[in-house]
Amino acid sequence: MEGLCFGIDIGGTSVKLGLFKENGNLLDKWEIPTRKEESGSYILKDVAESVRKKMEDEKLVKAQIIGIGIGVPGPVTEDGTVINCVNLGWGVFNVAEEMKQLTGFGTKAGNDANVAALGEMWQGGGMGYKNLIMVTLGTGVGGGVILNGEILTGSNGAAGEIGHITVNYEEEDSCGCGKQGCLEQFASATGIVKEAKRLLNQSGELSKLRGIQHLSAKAIFDCAKEGDALSVKSVEQLCRYLGIALSHVAAVVDPQAFVIGGGVSKAGSMLTDLIKKYYEQYVLFALKNKEFKLARLGNDAGIYGSAKLIIGK
Amino acid sequence: MEGLCFGIDIGGTSVKLGLFKENGNLLDKWEIPTRKEESGSYILKDVAESVRKKMEDEKLVKAQIIGIGIGVPGPVTEDGTVINCVNLGWGVFNVAEEMKQLTGFGTKAGNDANVAALGEMWQGGGMGYKNLIMVTLGTGVGGGVILNGEILTGSNGAAGEIGHITVNYEEEDSCGCGKQGCLEQFASATGIVKEAKRLLNQSGELSKLRGIQHLSAKAIFDCAKEGDALSVKSVEQLCRYLGIALSHVAAVVDPQAFVIGGGVSKAGSMLTDLIKKYYEQYVLFALKNKEFKLARLGNDAGIYGSAKLIIGK
Repeated sequence: MEGLCFGIDIGGTSVKLGLFKENGNLLDKWEIPTRKEESGSYILKDVAESVRKKMEDEKLVKAQIIGIGIGVPGPVTEDGTVINCVNLGWGVFNVAEEMKQLTGFGTKAGNDANVAALGEMWQGGGMGYKNLIMVTLGTGVGGGVILNGEILTGSNGAAGEIGHITVNYEEEDSCGCGKQGCLEQFASATGIVKEAKRLLNQSGELSKLRGIQHLSAKAIFDCAKEGDALSVKSVEQLCRYLGIALSHVAAVVDPQAFVIGGGVSKAGSMLTDLIKKYYEQYVLFALKNKEFKLARLGNDAGIYGSAKLIIGK
Repeated sequence: MEGLCFGIDIGGTSVKLGLFKENGNLLDKWEIPTRKEESGSYILKDVAESVRKKMEDEKLVKAQIIGIGIGVPGPVTEDGTVINCVNLGWGVFNVAEEMKQLTGFGTKAGNDANVAALGEMWQGGGMGYKNLIMVTLGTGVGGGVILNGEILTGSNGAAGEIGHITVNYEEEDSCGCGKQGCLEQFASATGIVKEAKRLLNQSGELSKLRGIQHLSAKAIFDCAKEGDALSVKSVEQLCRYLGIALSHVAAVVDPQAFVIGGGVSKAGSMLTDLIKKYYEQYVLFALKNKEFKLARLGNDAGIYGSAKLIIGK
């Protein structure tokens, strides 16, 4: 009888679930909505019920299940305690413990960005590296630090919060976190658009971007690839901030590689090449020549990484 | 028969040696000069001879010695390979292996700043913490990252190079490393003096510092404590840069505490209080409320930490 595990990624709008073989193969994946009512108190129950139903449908037996891994959008300490997942309405409690009680299966939990980093190391853009940094450029900017093949959690579950490294000390607008000048304000999908609009307003320069009604990070990269000067300037600024932030990260942990993921990373090698250009400008000589890889698992990185929390090294 | 070990700290002008009991007690310490002639090829031989002589003088037997720990001023990989210790004239070779051949004792090697961090964790300002960052403010600015009670080495031995985090993107003068705007340019003993002179030249402001012929970091702190406005401005700038750099470090590894050492740290709580003030201004809310401690082992941190490489957890 083959060992199986569930890899679960809890997001603000939906929960992604994956059923994995012990050898790492993904057998099945599906989604359920995230019910945030009543301080998110239904979420884990819905997940447990979905796991139960899947086992029934697939005629799986309890003894086959080696465990459940869960990624959540907030700080998680080593023992599985979440500390204020504001997106889910959660306070402080042990998510691993509660999931174990609901399902009877041993559970491990991690922060979603950290877990995504682990997934990319395992079967994605970071394959072959045991020490890497993943940066996820999406609605926000997430980060994960993998050392010796494992997630670095940090003393309060807040390691890898790369999106909140201050990269612009003059910025007056506030980040969602309340600070000013965070990387996330410049390198998230919304941040990229906001900064391009700022450039458009500041200059009278002609630009293809002026003709676009709903500006998106994709449109800005597309126009930059076509040589639109203001779009190029936007992309260069974004990559400069990313290069700076990653040079700071490197000075702390000296990783082998960086993996860039999230929707913005669809821009491809233009993005990684430019990040690397600025990275090398700001980093100590002994830390140059790192690999800059694109993530490969897309939205599945979270379920892969969660499964990897359970599946041995 | 009691187990003993040697903790050795190789510096640019002298080598410090310590003889430790297995329980961590320092029995004896002494120094020998660092002979840098012929690409530093005498250094390890001199150390081995000094170890031999100490054993003879103290009538120690080989079976008592559980090993030798060595700190060196440059990047050292996990297996003990040094990568260009420019201060010693060394190229690339395995210092742990060579020391073992010279003495017959098992040897472990680490970077000097990392080893100092380990020493402070063990018996200094970082006692009680297993996850901490040490910053040494001396001729340069060194850094060490301790996670789970062990040194984080990094993939090329360059983890913890906090002194070369870029903190000022407008700086035009170059750091010793060749980059511009490194923390070391502002927070080393020489950097503090240089920046104070810059402030003196830029303003016509009255200051006690104008009367001092050989300006030192100590004099600047002393004048700041007496309320001299320009000195206060110098100290605030220095602590702002340190606070910024440590906020970056925290976003990566989320440590429990920071330990500030090196000659500049003699300034005491004025220094740690101001660093903390700026740190909290630039760091994510989840990373606030870290401890800021002063180092306690002074120049012995290196021999303690080197011994700790050998003495079990």
